[in-house]
Amino acid sequence: MSVKHVGVALLGLGVVGGGTYEILRDKRGMIAKNDGVDIEVRRVLDRNTERLKQLGVESLAARDIDEIVHDPDIDIVAEFFGGVEPAKSFLIKALEAGKSIVTANKEMLAKSWRELESAAERGGGGLYFEASCVGGVPVIRTLTDSMQGNAVTSLKGIVNGTTNYILSRMSDEGVEYDVCLKEAQRLGYAEADPTADVDGFDSSYKNCILSSLAYRVRIPLESVYREGISNINVKDIAYGKELGYTLKLLAISKCGNGVVEARVHPSFLPSSHPLAAVKGAFNALYIHGDSVDDIMLYGRGAGALPTGSAIVSDIVFAAGKDKHRRFPFQSEVGEDIAVSDDFSSSHYIRFDVKEEEGTLGKISGAFAKCGVPVKTVLKKDDGTLIIVTHEVRESVVKRALFAAEQLSGVERVVAHIRVEE
Amino acid sequence: MSVKHVGVALLGLGVVGGGTYEILRDKRGMIAKNDGVDIEVRRVLDRNTERLKQLGVESLAARDIDEIVHDPDIDIVAEFFGGVEPAKSFLIKALEAGKSIVTANKEMLAKSWRELESAAERGGGGLYFEASCVGGVPVIRTLTDSMQGNAVTSLKGIVNGTTNYILSRMSDEGVEYDVCLKEAQRLGYAEADPTADVDGFDSSYKNCILSSLAYRVRIPLESVYREGISNINVKDIAYGKELGYTLKLLAISKCGNGVVEARVHPSFLPSSHPLAAVKGAFNALYIHGDSVDDIMLYGRGAGALPTGSAIVSDIVFAAGKDKHRRFPFQSEVGEDIAVSDDFSSSHYIRFDVKEEEGTLGKISGAFAKCGVPVKTVLKKDDGTLIIVTHEVRESVVKRALFAAEQLSGVERVVAHIRVEE
Repeated sequence: MSVKHVGVALLGLGVVGGGTYEILRDKRGMIAKNDGVDIEVRRVLDRNTERLKQLGVESLAARDIDEIVHDPDIDIVAEFFGGVEPAKSFLIKALEAGKSIVTANKEMLAKSWRELESAAERGGGGLYFEASCVGGVPVIRTLTDSMQGNAVTSLKGIVNGTTNYILSRMSDEGVEYDVCLKEAQRLGYAEADPTADVDGFDSSYKNCILSSLAYRVRIPLESVYREGISNINVKDIAYGKELGYTLKLLAISKCGNGVVEARVHPSFLPSSHPLAAVKGAFNALYIHGDSVDDIMLYGRGAGALPTGSAIVSDIVFAAGKDKHRRFPFQSEVGEDIAVSDDFSSSHYIRFDVKEEEGTLGKISGAFAKCGVPVKTVLKKDDGTLIIVTHEVRESVVKRALFAAEQLSGVERVVAHIRVEE
Repeated sequence: MSVKHVGVALLGLGVVGGGTYEILRDKRGMIAKNDGVDIEVRRVLDRNTERLKQLGVESLAARDIDEIVHDPDIDIVAEFFGGVEPAKSFLIKALEAGKSIVTANKEMLAKSWRELESAAERGGGGLYFEASCVGGVPVIRTLTDSMQGNAVTSLKGIVNGTTNYILSRMSDEGVEYDVCLKEAQRLGYAEADPTADVDGFDSSYKNCILSSLAYRVRIPLESVYREGISNINVKDIAYGKELGYTLKLLAISKCGNGVVEARVHPSFLPSSHPLAAVKGAFNALYIHGDSVDDIMLYGRGAGALPTGSAIVSDIVFAAGKDKHRRFPFQSEVGEDIAVSDDFSSSHYIRFDVKEEEGTLGKISGAFAKCGVPVKTVLKKDDGTLIIVTHEVRESVVKRALFAAEQLSGVERVVAHIRVEE
């Protein structure tokens, strides 16, 4: 087999950048032998000289991005800065200079995909981002290169390890949110400022990327509905268990009849659903295609080597392409396809009620009037009343909740969590 | 996007061939728009004229394979006959004529891979077989195109739907093997002659293919150890549950220190293992790579449209390649790498014992003498004694079983099932 030589620059040598460097260093011979690509790391860009020393790459340090962009021996630039800037400006420079880029940067991609894509088109290089979603698990490649004979109709994913770790601990050990978050921070699973994870931003970036690929329509990040896990009470996780449900922070999207919906929120799943068994820092994506039916891809959603594995795979993949794939989506939302936030699901609603006769009847009556069919009722001695509804639209359930709160027997709606049957 | 026109011939229009035809017919426009490949089914080969009529393809019927092989407008031949002949001869002709081939035929591939591969090399076309393992789930593509930065160290898979359906029913409903098999036959999940499935042949073909790709060494089919499920007693499934295990027919392989082992046999898994939750006709493959850690791919392992989805994906994939990937494995077993059937695992052993004092002690003594450490003991009032061992080699546990059967308190070894911790 003839071997193709490829020069690579790494921007940022943090956790994933460092892991990628180590894989490329240790597996260089194996990859050349197996895949016919000899990958040489020629330049690295990181201000942390300690880290450069630690990895033994001081001699590869570039002064600035221009040195990399103007180096004709660099074919591929892999980026690990995270965040939009300076990553975006650096990568647009690299793309315009004809390099291909490989990135795990979901925020930049969700916010600036079109700009990156058009820079790639101008320069002729490719844009690769398998590592942006579900670590080393090939979810992007599955959507783009293994489901060509399918119209994808829905995605459901656990795409954030931090929140899945917290919810798994709350569920398994009955520990409150705050305690689990602190524990996650102590173990390095959560950042000091956990907002990006616990408020669902990270999941919404990934949902935006995955759904855009699945439905071949560019979905604007603003149209992804987002709700985090910080208000989740451990009591509701326990009541949900009693009803046969497991709570997960899900990235969900659906597409049909010219309407797409994309959302991130805590969600009860039947405990028998394969996603319910995805625990701790593991992630999984559940895809429905009209030919293949259901498939699920499962693995570590983060970490130096798992994410590095996806980066390396993209580098090999990109190196093998003479012509790179383009994603100038055929449709933009608003053209062929509309986006809706009035989505349908079942609902779990927990009320505090007074000790009055007939409160359940009154609530059911109010729900029926609003067109919300009740599926299950769970009543506790302490004034707790839980109703699970059949599938209804958001706008409808909100009207019903408002009506119920006006009833004399109802103290308040304590919790409202969506249910994906 | 420029659209490439591709002519396809389908050999055999049974379940999967028919499903593939339907996807190619219904999705032709979508695939051309999304992937730039316009796939035209130009010829079909099937003697069943009723079936041709049913699908409305009488006008495409070819007289024989030569008509297809000599048609310059056919680029890709997809085969659905199953079995080694005439599939193999037909495909070698097609390959030698420069066509690429796409197949779901695991038996032919496991038995004749090298011949097919060298015909492909002579002709210049490609050999694609995503559909041969785990239906529409991209297990092949994951091993070949998404794990380049990994040394794969193990595979564990539920790769046969028939046996998983039978074992799931035995486990969930406590029904005996024979009853479940008849039910599976009635529902069309099992063939009239179920040997290929229940005796593990089908799983061994798939193990051979997947392991060869994972470890980049051609593993001869004869070296895949094989044991089926027809001797499984529903009692052992129940005892296993008590011990926290779920029974599955697993295709397992491991590679390390220059030794590879590949085997198919019933196996107890911890009930918390993600594979234990794979029920009914679903399949899943669990892969460990040294960078990516554990990943699992899950979905339908059979069926017209799920398998058709993989065939169509391969057709699109093949159509996009100017140079096709070759698998002239760097190593053949016996060169760089040895194959071992003296593999290690834990063991579940059920004894019938007499009502004598000290039998357990005697067995433990005999086991200890042979170097078999006991992990768990389960004793029942009816003379049932179950021992679960720690990990030991096959040759060692067999010596220990022989020794135990000589003991005065032991009636016999009733069941011996491997345990994958």
